[in-house]
Formats: sequence, structure tokens, C-alpha cells
Amino acid sequence: MGGVSHVVVDWGTSSFRLWALDRAGNVRGERRSAQGMIAAATEGFEAVLESHLAALGIGDGIPVMMCGMVGARGGWVEAAYVDIPAGLDGLAERAVHVPSARRLIRLLPGLAQREADRHDVMRGEETQLLPLAREGFHGLACLPGTHSKWVVVENGEARRFATFMTGELFQLLRTGSVIAPAVATAVAVDPDSAAFARGVGDGLTLPETLGNQLFRLRASWLLVGEDPAGTLARLSGLLIGAELAGAARLLGTLENVALIASGPAAPAYRRALSLAGATGVVAREADDCVRAGLHAAALSAFRLERVSA
Amino acid sequence: MGGVSHVVVDWGTSSFRLWALDRAGNVRGERRSAQGMIAAATEGFEAVLESHLAALGIGDGIPVMMCGMVGARGGWVEAAYVDIPAGLDGLAERAVHVPSARRLIRLLPGLAQREADRHDVMRGEETQLLPLAREGFHGLACLPGTHSKWVVVENGEARRFATFMTGELFQLLRTGSVIAPAVATAVAVDPDSAAFARGVGDGLTLPETLGNQLFRLRASWLLVGEDPAGTLARLSGLLIGAELAGAARLLGTLENVALIASGPAAPAYRRALSLAGATGVVAREADDCVRAGLHAAALSAFRLERVSA
Repeated sequence: MGGVSHVVVDWGTSSFRLWALDRAGNVRGERRSAQGMIAAATEGFEAVLESHLAALGIGDGIPVMMCGMVGARGGWVEAAYVDIPAGLDGLAERAVHVPSARRLIRLLPGLAQREADRHDVMRGEETQLLPLAREGFHGLACLPGTHSKWVVVENGEARRFATFMTGELFQLLRTGSVIAPAVATAVAVDPDSAAFARGVGDGLTLPETLGNQLFRLRASWLLVGEDPAGTLARLSGLLIGAELAGAARLLGTLENVALIASGPAAPAYRRALSLAGATGVVAREADDCVRAGLHAAALSAFRLERVSA
Repeated sequence: MGGVSHVVVDWGTSSFRLWALDRAGNVRGERRSAQGMIAAATEGFEAVLESHLAALGIGDGIPVMMCGMVGARGGWVEAAYVDIPAGLDGLAERAVHVPSARRLIRLLPGLAQREADRHDVMRGEETQLLPLAREGFHGLACLPGTHSKWVVVENGEARRFATFMTGELFQLLRTGSVIAPAVATAVAVDPDSAAFARGVGDGLTLPETLGNQLFRLRASWLLVGEDPAGTLARLSGLLIGAELAGAARLLGTLENVALIASGPAAPAYRRALSLAGATGVVAREADDCVRAGLHAAALSAFRLERVSA
């Protein structure tokens, strides 16, 4: 494949995304798969990676920069957490080398917050913040997901953050709880629905009643046959509304919010932020952010090496 | 078995409890098993019941009063919900007959709250309230469990109630979430621990941050190897604390609270209520309450029939 100077990979718990880039960051090739950590542990990290590189015709001389759970303990090689406050541009210098690999591969570290009773970690999302930090963003970054991250970004640094288990709770409740039969036939959350807005409102204003509101989703289905799509939207809204209330409580008011999301989370959080009265909200595509962050880290890390060679 | 005038059964989703009683309510025989709704649906409700009655030598002429999920749709025979406000003493009159059974069997109905946006249901717990109502209790009954019930009882009536999914959330998070490895070796919640009290306090005062506090249980395990027993106690405390905050919000202040619990929930909720500043707390053994409630309903329902015969 011509023009490729480096490859970047976001390798998470349940997904693998690879981009072959040129020096300017243009995408020359792309691969996506569901080969997350479990698949990689079975098939072997290098085997999975090289199969995708081979499919794109990428030679052994092309270096690879990665982020995500691949650098966790139990991943390929552990890239120890960097403590916050942490300059985001400096993360590339802390990327660890994969000594066993046939090609040059580096793994970006995650971030840790070690403040007593505020312990928190992230791995992968920090890379999405790199482009934001380079642009001089000051404010609150919101990265929705299985474990949503809220990060105070100032002066190019991640200063504080808070993770919320929103996406995981949604999945547990949707599929494994007594709410499951009430949403069994619902396909997707409609963030423009009244039910979603109602859930967000209740989550924002009555977060202490969450355990009751969840049960009432079942009760409404039992007693009045509540619509499954509306129930699913309300479930999502409740959890996101409570998350927004919690983020505001922990990290300050919802001002200058950069929403870094992809897929269905983007419109859902955009609507929820609007309902919560968040101001200065700008939306970014998460895929673009992680690719740009990996690209910046790759340029920095691999150029340094070439100079020193 | 001599002296047995009737049998009472609390038949729930995952448990079966049977007492053979005399007219005064004294226990002449007892059976317990894990044959809940799933086992009963497979083996047959009558087969399960009669096997326990045969083991105690109970003849066909002895009537049986039951409560719990056995009367739900999908149970043995549906005993339709009674709408609140509902006189608790009157529930016996609404007990439905099981026409197919060889002996006289009646199933007590559950309660439904059909108020818009307060939809809620209970099935089994209402029977535990009967003795309380007969004693002239006025206040808030707290019945912890997989789905904790909080019920305003006044003038012998269940007037309002709210269910919280606390126990189910605890199990989902303990066994099926990213918190699971952090509590894998913990055996039980110690309600006298500082960790439990800390969780209750955080749940009470920071309920909107629940999704974050849950994730931090994992982060503390990752970063500082937090003790699993303490983490489990904190998880339990967080969920119970949030429940107490929600109950107070929905049903008024925590005054004149009757805690109807059995097993480990009893000391946990007693401590949590104390930490929340609840007043006038009296504790009742849930098993005694359900048996006494079933006994009262049986005397009422079966005596009426004998008079009319």
C-alpha cells in the first residue's frame, strides 16, 4: 500500500480499529473487527494485528502506535498508567515498546487519578483528548460509552476526571434484569422521543430515586403494557440524566462541554446535554479524535526515534 | 400430623416456605425449599405442594392459604392485583380459589399502585404487612429484598408504596459487572464495618454520583488493591444509602419505620436506617410477619366458608 508512513490502532475490550496513515494523517487504509481483548488473548495479539496489516499489504518496516486495553495489565504489554494532572501531548513519550514484536510497535499509557476516594482510571479515551488539548480547549470533555468519562481539560492537561458506569448499567438492565421483558422487542433508543426526555429529566432531578424509577419501568409494562421502545428510551434517559447530574456535582457546571462520541451515543448525549442546560457544547466524532490523537502520538514518538537512530 | 387446622405457604420467585399451623397459629410443621417459580413450572405447582404436604403427613382435608408469585400471571392461578389504597385485612376476601386442586387452596392477591407515573406492584410483601396493620401501626414499612418495598401504612391500609431494585442491582453488579473481580473473594457484607457506613453515607448524600462511585470500586481495586470485603460492604452500603434517600424523597421523612426483614438484610438496613437518622425504627422478623399474615388470612377466609357451608 503506497504512501503509508505509519499505522494507528485503537484496541479496546471488545473492538479493534486500525488505520493506515500517511505523514499528513490521511487515511490510506482501514480495518475494523470485533477482535477485542478476549479474541486477542486466544488468537494472540501479534497474530491478530499482523493479519490485518497483511490484508492491507503493510510491510514490516511500518511502525504501529496503539492505545486502549491492549496496554492494560493482561493485555499485550502493560503501559503503566500516567498520573493526572498529565500533559496530553507528553503521553507519546510514555508509550511503551513491544519488545517481542517483529515490527516497531508502541502502546500509549492510560491515565490514573490517585487522589484518595477519587480513584479512577481510563485507557484509550485519553488519546481522544489529544487533538482537543492541541487546539487549546478549556472545559469539560464528555466521552460516553460503556464507562463514560468526564474530563476537565485545561492548559493541555487532563486535570481531573470521573468515570460513570452508564453504558454497562444500561446493558445489564436491558438484558439481565427484570426490566428485560419490558424492552425485549425494542430495537433502539430514540433520543428525540418524549420518553427519552422524560427519563433524562427524572434522572437529573430525582437521581436518588433511580432504583425505584428502574423498577417502575417494569411495573408500567405489567400494569398498562407500556410501549417497549418508549421504555427503552426512558431507561437510557434515566441513566444518562443521572450521569449528567453526577458529572455536574463532581466536576462543576456543564459549561464548555466537548462531546466526543460516535454512533447512537452522540445524538443521545447531545439531547441530554441540551435538556440539562449545558452551554458551549461542541460535538466531535470520537473515531476522528482517536485517529488524530494516535497520529499525533505516532509522529512524535517515531520521528524522535528516527532522529536518534 | 395432629392439631393442624390449616397450612400456609409463601411461594416466591426463588423460594418455597410452608408452615402447618393450628387454629392459634402455632407451628406444627415446616418445610423450606428452593423450588421457586421456575422449578414449579417444570415439576407442576400441585406436585411440588403435595410432596411437601405428604412429607408432613397432612391430609387432603386441610386447606392451604398462599401468597407470593404463585398468584402472578404465569404462576399457578392469577390472583389479580388489588389497587391501593387497600385495607390489608380485606385481602383475604380477595384470595382466589385454585379450581383444579384436590384440596381447598386460596391465593392472596398482590397490590398495585396505578397512579400515573407511580406505577408499582408487589406480591407477597403485602401479606407481611397484615400483622402490622392489625396492631394499628401508622408509619413507613421497609421490606428489604431483591426488590425492596417501602409502604405507607395508615388506618389498616397500604396507602402508597415504592419499590427499589436494590437487591437485584447488588447481585447484577456483584456477579456480572466490572466490579465482580474486585469483590470475587468477599463472602458477606459486614454492616458494622466502616466501609459499609461510608457507602451508606455516600449513597445518601451523593446519590447522583452512583454510577461514578460504582466504577470507583473497580478503580480502587486496580490502583491500590482495595480489600474485597470492604469493597463489597461499600457496594451494599451505596445502594442501600441511595435507596433510603429515594424512599425519603418519595414517601416523606424516615419516621416510625417498621423494618420487616430476615437474614443479612436485617442488620444491614437497621444500621443504614440509623446512619440516615431514621426515628422510631422497630424491627420485625419477616418470616414471622408473613406467617402471621397468612394465618390471619386463612382464619378469615376458611372460617367464612365453613359458616356458609
